[in-house]
Amino acid sequence: MMQRRKTRKIRLGSVEVGGDAPVSVQSMTTTRTEDVAATAAQIRELERLGCDIVRVAVPTDAAAAALGRIKDAIEIPLVADVHFSHKLALEAIRQGVDGLRINPGNMRNMDAVREVVLAAGERCIPIRIGVNSGSISERRGLDVVPDASDLCSLMVDTVLEYCSFFESVGFGDIKLSLKASDVPTTMAAYRRVAAECDYPLHVGITAAGLPDESIIKSSVGIGGLLSEGIGDTIRVSITGPPADEVRVGIQILKALRLRPPGLRLLSCPTCGRCEIDLPGLVESVRRGLPEDLLDEDLEIAVMGCVVNGPGEAARADFGVAGGKGFAHIFEKGERIKKVAEQNIVRELLDHIARRRAMVTGRDSAGNNL
Amino acid sequence: MMQRRKTRKIRLGSVEVGGDAPVSVQSMTTTRTEDVAATAAQIRELERLGCDIVRVAVPTDAAAAALGRIKDAIEIPLVADVHFSHKLALEAIRQGVDGLRINPGNMRNMDAVREVVLAAGERCIPIRIGVNSGSISERRGLDVVPDASDLCSLMVDTVLEYCSFFESVGFGDIKLSLKASDVPTTMAAYRRVAAECDYPLHVGITAAGLPDESIIKSSVGIGGLLSEGIGDTIRVSITGPPADEVRVGIQILKALRLRPPGLRLLSCPTCGRCEIDLPGLVESVRRGLPEDLLDEDLEIAVMGCVVNGPGEAARADFGVAGGKGFAHIFEKGERIKKVAEQNIVRELLDHIARRRAMVTGRDSAGNNL
Repeated sequence: MMQRRKTRKIRLGSVEVGGDAPVSVQSMTTTRTEDVAATAAQIRELERLGCDIVRVAVPTDAAAAALGRIKDAIEIPLVADVHFSHKLALEAIRQGVDGLRINPGNMRNMDAVREVVLAAGERCIPIRIGVNSGSISERRGLDVVPDASDLCSLMVDTVLEYCSFFESVGFGDIKLSLKASDVPTTMAAYRRVAAECDYPLHVGITAAGLPDESIIKSSVGIGGLLSEGIGDTIRVSITGPPADEVRVGIQILKALRLRPPGLRLLSCPTCGRCEIDLPGLVESVRRGLPEDLLDEDLEIAVMGCVVNGPGEAARADFGVAGGKGFAHIFEKGERIKKVAEQNIVRELLDHIARRRAMVTGRDSAGNNL
Repeated sequence: MMQRRKTRKIRLGSVEVGGDAPVSVQSMTTTRTEDVAATAAQIRELERLGCDIVRVAVPTDAAAAALGRIKDAIEIPLVADVHFSHKLALEAIRQGVDGLRINPGNMRNMDAVREVVLAAGERCIPIRIGVNSGSISERRGLDVVPDASDLCSLMVDTVLEYCSFFESVGFGDIKLSLKASDVPTTMAAYRRVAAECDYPLHVGITAAGLPDESIIKSSVGIGGLLSEGIGDTIRVSITGPPADEVRVGIQILKALRLRPPGLRLLSCPTCGRCEIDLPGLVESVRRGLPEDLLDEDLEIAVMGCVVNGPGEAARADFGVAGGKGFAHIFEKGERIKKVAEQNIVRELLDHIARRRAMVTGRDSAGNNL
């Protein structure tokens, strides 16, 4: 039902971005890049959570010199985030990173940029041209703060000028990002650049804040753009652990069915119709589900009453529709049994375990039946 | 930068929905509607949080009979949520509710529906025609579970048929909703119905689950539609307290600048460049901000390093850009002072308080200067 914008495909190590490649999830380390052990450990945690591409800051010579060793210790592609200094970018390329991000807002000497582009071209390393609202106006030597509409134009124009320069050097291995801290400005900038070129887009909201604010702003902005078909790789920015960025990014993709949704636990918001403790029930079901089920394409609906209960329960693989002091358990539309309220969680989980055992030939401990 | 779809305007009590009216935030009570005191108390809490319209379930005669007393005890418009029984709908109208929601999925006797529509017309009470994925297939007597694309068509067709019937009775005071538990299906249904008619739309994702999942699904789905200009009133469904629904709904609108954004606390995700404890710093700033500031149109940027720090800090009303063991404090682009890390929070909050006192002529305790 969703048509993705047609983009060129680029490749960061083993991960493709753009074209028909699945939308990938990125994050960025918060460790000191110079600390190889800490940085590699954080990246390995992100890998376990499903992160596809990771970026590290390269603010110093020591950070640049650490990149090769970090790369040796991890599986996913490594992107070097370089600002101000083309020398650091060149060293990152020599260290064998899988991608480079530079910021037109603070790398203004185009002879230096040409050196970086040529070096990246030799090694077939793609470059992200990434502008941010926080660093854009400097480039233009503006001494007034642009308003939202000017900011949007400024970001788009800056990125496209940079693209033209890269193309003039014969380099097209490009990814773009245009992140503002304001959601509508960000969305407008991506929409405009998407209409102007076919480079793959890295989508995110910058400086989105603490988890509460960022999760909503990122879901609205990144999710909204993806739902229009815009975006080839995403990064959720959260002031907090990067593991949260990966979890939220994956959930955004799952919500839009851009990634296999895995187990979905549907539940109604409850209202004056609901005669059982639904939030408690849903929490108990979630806690009780075996971990190996979480990646399965499975829908479990836990519904409070007869309005949408039987319907959602019937559409789901397994379902519960609550009544007064009892519930009906469903499987693929069939009413299986009526159980007392205090037994709902156990009966539902037992039923799921039995059915799974019949399908897999193994019990929940993994033993053959 | 965002163009809202042109819709007819309807009115629920004192609140307009559609046309040029601001997008409103709704929630639904979780108390037993028969319990007037508990229901009114919950609604008053929602009012304090900024809820614009509230809905209550009307599953019984006693619930219907309580509606007048609930309405007397609250300020915001009251909507009766009625399923199955047109008699309950008629009683709700007699009780003076400001709006009615009926579900084509379970009110199938069109003579009965006509009675409800005529009664609502006499009292000038708008009706929401609200279908849900969980209750739609029953209406069609389907014994197979429709797939996502069929479900989308089924929801759109059902709603539009109901609209035609209402129009044939001379009733146009209509609002529509088409909620699936799946985000892409919901978005597709709203997009299609938006292209087919100009009735205002009540937007939401149904059975979205526990807070973690629902906040992301709702932000993506509701936020994505709003960013396309679709949606006149919204309801976030969370398996949990309705206060959370209101908070998240308001944050979605603020993220899209569909409601004055109030105080924004921007902060970067931190990376290997950051040499101060940024998450701790941002949390401390948030905790330290006086409550009367939260509704002000004010941007405070707390940034970890020199890449986007000075830029975001310059765009913000007040800003902090961190260095190694120190930070610069900014006000509207001007560097005010350099402070040691341990003093950042106090210095920033003191500076903001001083500036505010100069503007308002009052100190933070509200005393005239």
